[in-house]
Amino acid sequence: MDFIKSLVENKLLLIGNFVLTSGKISPYYLDLRRLSNYYEIFSDTVNKAIDKIKNIDFDMIIGIATGGIPFASFISCRMGKPLGYIRMEKKGYGTDKILEADVSGRKILLVDDVATTGGSLSKAVEIINSEGGRVVASLVIVDREEGAEKKLGEYGVKLISVYKIREILEYLLNSSLISDNDKNNIKEYLVKNIE
Amino acid sequence: MDFIKSLVENKLLLIGNFVLTSGKISPYYLDLRRLSNYYEIFSDTVNKAIDKIKNIDFDMIIGIATGGIPFASFISCRMGKPLGYIRMEKKGYGTDKILEADVSGRKILLVDDVATTGGSLSKAVEIINSEGGRVVASLVIVDREEGAEKKLGEYGVKLISVYKIREILEYLLNSSLISDNDKNNIKEYLVKNIE
Repeated sequence: MDFIKSLVENKLLLIGNFVLTSGKISPYYLDLRRLSNYYEIFSDTVNKAIDKIKNIDFDMIIGIATGGIPFASFISCRMGKPLGYIRMEKKGYGTDKILEADVSGRKILLVDDVATTGGSLSKAVEIINSEGGRVVASLVIVDREEGAEKKLGEYGVKLISVYKIREILEYLLNSSLISDNDKNNIKEYLVKNIE
Repeated sequence: MDFIKSLVENKLLLIGNFVLTSGKISPYYLDLRRLSNYYEIFSDTVNKAIDKIKNIDFDMIIGIATGGIPFASFISCRMGKPLGYIRMEKKGYGTDKILEADVSGRKILLVDDVATTGGSLSKAVEIINSEGGRVVASLVIVDREEGAEKKLGEYGVKLISVYKIREILEYLLNSSLISDNDKNNIKEYLVKNIE
């Protein structure tokens, strides 16, 4: 798949042994912040996303800063929908969340680049809902499948992803892009972490 | 002009007496972070911007986070050019600048929402140039005309703006959108601050 090949070639997806901030060990490291550097792949990803949300009735897009804003903006640009964003600012020991949009009475599509445990996404849902908006769905490029779908489900919000990490890793298992040792680590991870 | 009417109606441009963080008093307050909430006006602004840069030869767009990213993204989306961004993170007493793009050997169009003294823009030029890129022009929606053009000129970078604050304020002087008292404040400001 061109998307996965591009991730590996451009080092947005690294395969190996990575210690996450949570302390967990992961056989992959994914960083999509530079995906928009590659126009063709990014544009194609946006079009796939638009196809996946075509039955969703929403009237405003909110991107999560900073990583989610280019993706949210391209969807806004192509669908002709109003755009806003939410940014989280470290402030002392806490985090300030600032919503740059009047969401009152609006049906919101919430957009980020990646979903992991769903922490940022569900915080954003709370803030948007508290300001009178209603998040009707959330959309990410890659769902790392570490709990976000379930967490957002508790808020009644569906998580839509262009790709799931399982399909990306399974594609790599059947490719010549990575070593046999890496393949074994990935197999183990898939069995242990993703049902 | 629809753009100026929309700014006033949607309270992105406030007229009155405002004390800036610099201590200076300004007869207006401008915040474009929510401009993309208004799709038609934002889209029209992007098209005007694209017309203004049509003779510039560049191969990548870098937006300044967070305010510049939606504008940079729309230009990328409509022109089919690669996109990256630069974000400034407060860290202790300083600011960390993180460039999310491989700019090496590339001709860069630097994009933000507003230019004031040119501080952020010229910092971004320094970082991009130090990483092997070359900023060929900078583009903003509104130039507040407080020194950015001159400052960027020192780096050999031209500042292109869709609107200059002088034309926005002069439009208001000839409109019924603001009070006579506000008009006097604006006249005084124009004489004192913008040649």
